[in-house]
Amino acid sequence: MTQLFKHIAIAGLGLIGGSLARDIRQRGLAGRITGYGRNPERMQQARSLGLVDDCFVGFDKGLDDADLVIVGTPVSTIPQTIRDLAPYLPAGAIVTDVGSVKTAVVAEVEPLMPPNVFFIGGHPIAGTENSGFESSVHGLFENRICVLTPTGASHQESLAKLEAFWEGVGSRVIRMDVQTHDRIFAGISHLPHMVAFSLVNALVDMQGFDRQILQYSAGGFRDFTRIAASDPVMWRDIALLNRDNIVHAIEVFERSLHRIKQAISTGDEKMMESFFQKSRDTRREI
Amino acid sequence: MTQLFKHIAIAGLGLIGGSLARDIRQRGLAGRITGYGRNPERMQQARSLGLVDDCFVGFDKGLDDADLVIVGTPVSTIPQTIRDLAPYLPAGAIVTDVGSVKTAVVAEVEPLMPPNVFFIGGHPIAGTENSGFESSVHGLFENRICVLTPTGASHQESLAKLEAFWEGVGSRVIRMDVQTHDRIFAGISHLPHMVAFSLVNALVDMQGFDRQILQYSAGGFRDFTRIAASDPVMWRDIALLNRDNIVHAIEVFERSLHRIKQAISTGDEKMMESFFQKSRDTRREI
Repeated sequence: MTQLFKHIAIAGLGLIGGSLARDIRQRGLAGRITGYGRNPERMQQARSLGLVDDCFVGFDKGLDDADLVIVGTPVSTIPQTIRDLAPYLPAGAIVTDVGSVKTAVVAEVEPLMPPNVFFIGGHPIAGTENSGFESSVHGLFENRICVLTPTGASHQESLAKLEAFWEGVGSRVIRMDVQTHDRIFAGISHLPHMVAFSLVNALVDMQGFDRQILQYSAGGFRDFTRIAASDPVMWRDIALLNRDNIVHAIEVFERSLHRIKQAISTGDEKMMESFFQKSRDTRREI
Repeated sequence: MTQLFKHIAIAGLGLIGGSLARDIRQRGLAGRITGYGRNPERMQQARSLGLVDDCFVGFDKGLDDADLVIVGTPVSTIPQTIRDLAPYLPAGAIVTDVGSVKTAVVAEVEPLMPPNVFFIGGHPIAGTENSGFESSVHGLFENRICVLTPTGASHQESLAKLEAFWEGVGSRVIRMDVQTHDRIFAGISHLPHMVAFSLVNALVDMQGFDRQILQYSAGGFRDFTRIAASDPVMWRDIALLNRDNIVHAIEVFERSLHRIKQAISTGDEKMMESFFQKSRDTRREI
C-alpha cells in the first residue's frame, strides 16, 4: 500500500483507535504512528505489539510533525480532547474524529482549529457490542462504510486525503451533511439500540420472570438483544448528544408499535397481515 | 439409532414436518413414514427424496397402523386437521403438534381424541425466518429445546415415548403447562417479533426515508430485523391465538421504552446509564 501520511497521531486507543493503528501499520499507510492515552498498561501493550512508535499522555509531545490526527476518544470527550491538542497542531494537519454523533461535535470542534489546520468529522460504521483496546482487531473497517461529514467550511484537498485514508483501510466512504447523518443514524442505529435495551429490560420486568426462561429463546431473540449488551456510557453520551432525533425516532416507532397492538387487541386480521407483509417486503430489500 | 415407532405419520410437510421426516429417516426412528399434504409437487418431491414411503391427500388412507402422528400444519389449522384425521386414528396412537401457541390449540384438540388415542402438545424451538418444505433440512432440532405441554389428562407412557422421540432428533425436552408456555413465549419470542416488524415499519414511516439508508446499517440492525422477514400469515395466526399474552407483553415493553424516552428527553444521565447497564447485565447472563 502507498504511504498516505508521514505521521498519524491517534488520540484514544480503544476499539476504533486500536483497530486503526493495527491497519495503518499492517497496510503501511503512515511512516510513523503515535498514540495518546491515559492508561499506561494499554499504551505499553500497543508499543510492545509494534502498533505505535511512541505513546504519550499529554499532547505537548510528539504532535509537531503529525499530518493526520484521529480522535478516537468517547464521543462526549471529543471536543475537550481537541481543545487540549489544538495548540500543538502543526500547519497543514488534518484532524478527524470517529464519533457516532456529528452535529453537536462538529459545531463545537470546527471553531477550535488553528489557521491552516483542517477538521473533517467522520463516523466509521464498524464496531461491535464490545469496546476497548483489548477488542481491537485487524480489518475492522474492511467492506464497511465510513461516513464523512464535511461542512461548507471544509478544506477540499484534506477531504480527498481523508477519503483515501478510509479507503486505505478497506472502507467505502459516503459524504453526508451533519444533520442528515444524525437523523439517519437516529433511525438506523440509535433507535434499534434503545429498543433492544428496552426489550431486555421489559422481559426482566415481566411478572414471574425467571432468568431461566432466556434459555428458551431461539436465534431471533439472541440476535436481537446482542446489541443490548453495548457500552452503557457510550450510549448515554449518544443519547445526550443526539437527543431530539432519537426522541423523534422513538415516537415514530411507538406509533408503529401501537398500530400493531391495536390490530392484535381487536383481532384485525387484515391489518396484522399487511403490517407484517410490509415489514417483510422492506427487510427483504436490504 | 433405535427404532422408536413402527409408523410415523406427518400431516404437513413444511419446514418443521419436512425436517422431521429427514431426521426420522436418517436416524432410523421409524419403520415407515407417511406424509400428508395438499401440494402434489411437494409430496412427489418428498417421495422421490426417499423421505416418506407414502404420501396421501386424505387421512382415510395409510393411518390405520400409525403409532405416532405429528401435525405440522400452520398453527391456526391444527384443530381442523386433527378433527379431520381423528376418525382414522388406531387405538394406542400418540398424536402431537408443533404449534407455537398451546393453550387454545390443546383445549380444542384434547376432547377430539378417540378412546385410547393420546394427544400431547409440543413446540420445538427451532425454525428460521423461512418456511416451507424447500427450507427443510437435516439436523434442524439438534441441540434445540422442544417444549412438551402435557395436561392433567395426558397419558404418561405416551409422554415418555414422545420425549424419547424428540431426544432422538437431538433436542432437549422441557415440560411446561400450556399457560406458562404461552406467557413465556409471548415475552421471549412473540414480543421480539412484533417489535422487529414495528421497527422496520417505523423506519419506512420516517420522514425523508430512503431505502438506500438501510445500507448504512451495521451488524446490529441487520441481526435485529432478520426476524422481521418472518411469515406474515403465521404471525397473524400466532397473534390471534395468543392475543392477551402478546398485548400484555407489548404493554410491559411500552412502559420500558417510555422510561428510557423520558430519561433521554430530560437528559437524565443517571437513569439512562442504569437502564443501559441493567440491560447489559441481563444480556450477558444469557
